[in-house]
Amino acid sequence: MDSEPKRRPGARRRAAESTPKRVVNYRQLRHPFTPQQVFSDDEVAALHDTALRVCEELGIRILLPEARAILRAAGARVVDDMVFIGRDLIAAALASAPHSVRLRAANPAREQVYETGAMLFTPGSGCPNVTDRQRGRRAGSLESYLETLKLHQTYDVIHILGPSAEPQDVPPALRHYAMMQGQMALSDKPMFVYARGRAQIEQSLEMIRIGLALSEDDFNTGAWAVTVINSNSPRLLDNPMAQGLIDFARAGQMSIVTPFCLAGAMAPVTVAGALTLQHAEALAAIALVQMTRSGAPVSYGGFSSNVDMKSGAPAFGTPEHVKMQIGAGQLARHIGLPWRSAAGAAANANDMQATTENMMGLWGGMMGHATAIIHAAGWLEGGLSFGYEKFINDIEALQIIAELCVKPSGAEAEIGFDAIAEVAPSGHFFAAAHTMSRYSTAFYAPLVADLSNFGTWEAAGAQTADQRATAIWQANLRDFKAPPGAAEAADRLADYIALKTAAGGAPPLE
Amino acid sequence: MDSEPKRRPGARRRAAESTPKRVVNYRQLRHPFTPQQVFSDDEVAALHDTALRVCEELGIRILLPEARAILRAAGARVVDDMVFIGRDLIAAALASAPHSVRLRAANPAREQVYETGAMLFTPGSGCPNVTDRQRGRRAGSLESYLETLKLHQTYDVIHILGPSAEPQDVPPALRHYAMMQGQMALSDKPMFVYARGRAQIEQSLEMIRIGLALSEDDFNTGAWAVTVINSNSPRLLDNPMAQGLIDFARAGQMSIVTPFCLAGAMAPVTVAGALTLQHAEALAAIALVQMTRSGAPVSYGGFSSNVDMKSGAPAFGTPEHVKMQIGAGQLARHIGLPWRSAAGAAANANDMQATTENMMGLWGGMMGHATAIIHAAGWLEGGLSFGYEKFINDIEALQIIAELCVKPSGAEAEIGFDAIAEVAPSGHFFAAAHTMSRYSTAFYAPLVADLSNFGTWEAAGAQTADQRATAIWQANLRDFKAPPGAAEAADRLADYIALKTAAGGAPPLE
Repeated sequence: MDSEPKRRPGARRRAAESTPKRVVNYRQLRHPFTPQQVFSDDEVAALHDTALRVCEELGIRILLPEARAILRAAGARVVDDMVFIGRDLIAAALASAPHSVRLRAANPAREQVYETGAMLFTPGSGCPNVTDRQRGRRAGSLESYLETLKLHQTYDVIHILGPSAEPQDVPPALRHYAMMQGQMALSDKPMFVYARGRAQIEQSLEMIRIGLALSEDDFNTGAWAVTVINSNSPRLLDNPMAQGLIDFARAGQMSIVTPFCLAGAMAPVTVAGALTLQHAEALAAIALVQMTRSGAPVSYGGFSSNVDMKSGAPAFGTPEHVKMQIGAGQLARHIGLPWRSAAGAAANANDMQATTENMMGLWGGMMGHATAIIHAAGWLEGGLSFGYEKFINDIEALQIIAELCVKPSGAEAEIGFDAIAEVAPSGHFFAAAHTMSRYSTAFYAPLVADLSNFGTWEAAGAQTADQRATAIWQANLRDFKAPPGAAEAADRLADYIALKTAAGGAPPLE
Repeated sequence: MDSEPKRRPGARRRAAESTPKRVVNYRQLRHPFTPQQVFSDDEVAALHDTALRVCEELGIRILLPEARAILRAAGARVVDDMVFIGRDLIAAALASAPHSVRLRAANPAREQVYETGAMLFTPGSGCPNVTDRQRGRRAGSLESYLETLKLHQTYDVIHILGPSAEPQDVPPALRHYAMMQGQMALSDKPMFVYARGRAQIEQSLEMIRIGLALSEDDFNTGAWAVTVINSNSPRLLDNPMAQGLIDFARAGQMSIVTPFCLAGAMAPVTVAGALTLQHAEALAAIALVQMTRSGAPVSYGGFSSNVDMKSGAPAFGTPEHVKMQIGAGQLARHIGLPWRSAAGAAANANDMQATTENMMGLWGGMMGHATAIIHAAGWLEGGLSFGYEKFINDIEALQIIAELCVKPSGAEAEIGFDAIAEVAPSGHFFAAAHTMSRYSTAFYAPLVADLSNFGTWEAAGAQTADQRATAIWQANLRDFKAPPGAAEAADRLADYIALKTAAGGAPPLE
């Protein structure tokens, strides 16, 4: 069944040199598929309503007095560190939250519009360790942080930078200098800034102004920095996260609000229960942003999945994860905001499990119509490691998805009646005029997939996808060229960093 | 970012013994997602119309005189071996083709309704070779054919049997005896029969009647056998395929019509062009079925993908493949018939490429709303090998997809306001009453995924997903028990097979 195809590579190869290369824009993507549902509209409304009840009746514990004061001033009831946020206040916050945020970048061609319908990928982020086939698994360092930035910059399908590797060899009080300098020295994409306390945030934003030579007016034209704010589920907002929401809002920068609700551990064991908690925590954080500064950029978000029933370990790419992605998308549309989802793998190796998990999360994010799919490439061990070879293989998947954003032409010429007429029954199209004029740009050219037959593949060393990926990231690093203006940006930062370093830096907020 | 979760496995493990196991029906699945589009409705209509022009103006070459005679009698124009099929004839065929086919099986609980909205998976099929980590890559044999049947039977998410391994050590004239006997001796699912000439088909159907002790009336209640008919693209229907269409139609058995159109090789280089050819060939085959016997079971189908631009090798799981899956689904809905799609991998190893390719094909089939997704598990090397470990890992993906067919409950109790109220801020839900009463059945339990953390995983031998899969298929084979009645079915066949074997068997039609 499904008989074997013809293979006639000869003609193809001969013509390959003289034909134009295919160019597809992977930089700005729009979702190709319509969003899906796991809940009825009534159920979504009930989930939303229950989340409002959680906010107003059960309350959210917010450790930062300043945050409580902002919410109290806006009308919330505060008892000790518990904040009870009424539905009117949340409705007001949802009314003022922007539906569309301009994410600015050093290179205008790398800008993004963060809104429903856009599809943005970020690399696996927040990983304490990195791993590759050449050097093994090790703690993240400045070297690996900078290497991973080069990899992010190399592939257009990565739309926002992320801290793939934690530079643990840089003292915590100085780490943000290295991270900001690295992003501006090596990339021209929208940047990520950690919310690790006011001093670091202020300095990081100052570095963006200096590095990119922005006037105050320039800086105010959109969000130049993106952060991810995790509530400490269930129902706790800690000091750095609350301060991050406030500081990013005041500065007009982008907070991506993300309760990390693992059903059965930090959240109820059901899909609907976990999403209710996620939704309540997200609404509270969005309220804090909007009560700090009405109209400040903010994204709804969720990274809900489940734990393994046997071990309590977090699981990703599970059916429950995918259902929560789709349900979260429904909740986001219910409140009218763009949202972030997440892919990623629990696997410990570059294996079929890792790919199955990440692919499920990518498709779940697409089915949930997420504006940002975070951890889309390279995230292993539930985020404890960033894998170089995994990153390359995941980029292949992202590029395939990016290609799906371009609809095929259905126009008459493309339908190819003439092409079909050109070839006799049981003939082949390799040399048809219709083929020759199109083949060099007709198809996606794989990054890491090896399509040679078994014999050829074996004779060439039987390299698996992770082995081939090693050569690819090595070539990416070897051939890397910083984008125009990046060296100048780094230069502009040098004095500022030297001065601040001499003054002891800025320790992170605990 | 996305801070690390709590892990509290203790309570979980202690309670695990006394709680009920989760049961989800993977046997009969309905598509959980709405179908997608790559073409506008006008474009679909234009594609269909162009395919009609191919049938009536360019014609299909049909080698079998009997098939030409049937179509000529129905009004087609025949010139030598070229058959020109008018749109009236095709419209009549589409009007009589059933929209729903009952696929019968030895076990009534394994029956399927083959119709739009159903989602059926078949194993990787038609492979000349098999490969596993224990015994390496080798030619398919009766032993491997029977082993793969045991694997198909083990997993409910495989809905129709398929010839995963070609039993090349059985003489071609006797092979169908071994294959039919194997299917009935080891499984109670809907069976696959190769269309390798009238004598083999008649004998295979006779074996179904004898093995399952069916009366003529029983046999006529639905389709007991499924075959896949590949046209020899472009525009050729060879002798065994044409005879298969005729013989299956006459016997009321199921033909899944499948042009195998690789864009750039056996089909035009564009998505629309390849689909036009696919559609024309499928329509011609459906016409032959319906003109043979009005109302005979038949499925529309397509296995269109593209070749690699560099080598001419077939590629799977590519963006073009996915677009063709979605476009083929649109064409199937346009003509109102259920259709088959295909997943599968071009990769030569159990690696990330293999999984990326298969996952893209699985999701493409879902986006295209295919009734059957063939080659859904274990298909490597573009079908030249069936991989045992690949099969197990693909089954994991299929089971996750099967879980997605069950919507989460959005009902009030599930929403878990009380559960959220039960746990203090920053506490955990491991021991919550809401969790304890549900956790043992809340989540999908992985088949091969290992969710332990890196240290535990490494200490346990750092087994990758393909290594773990070896132990799983070995256990499946070791623990295999044939379903009730299977031994009796095989017994009933013994005399028939001995008799026919003594008479020299039935050589396949060339």
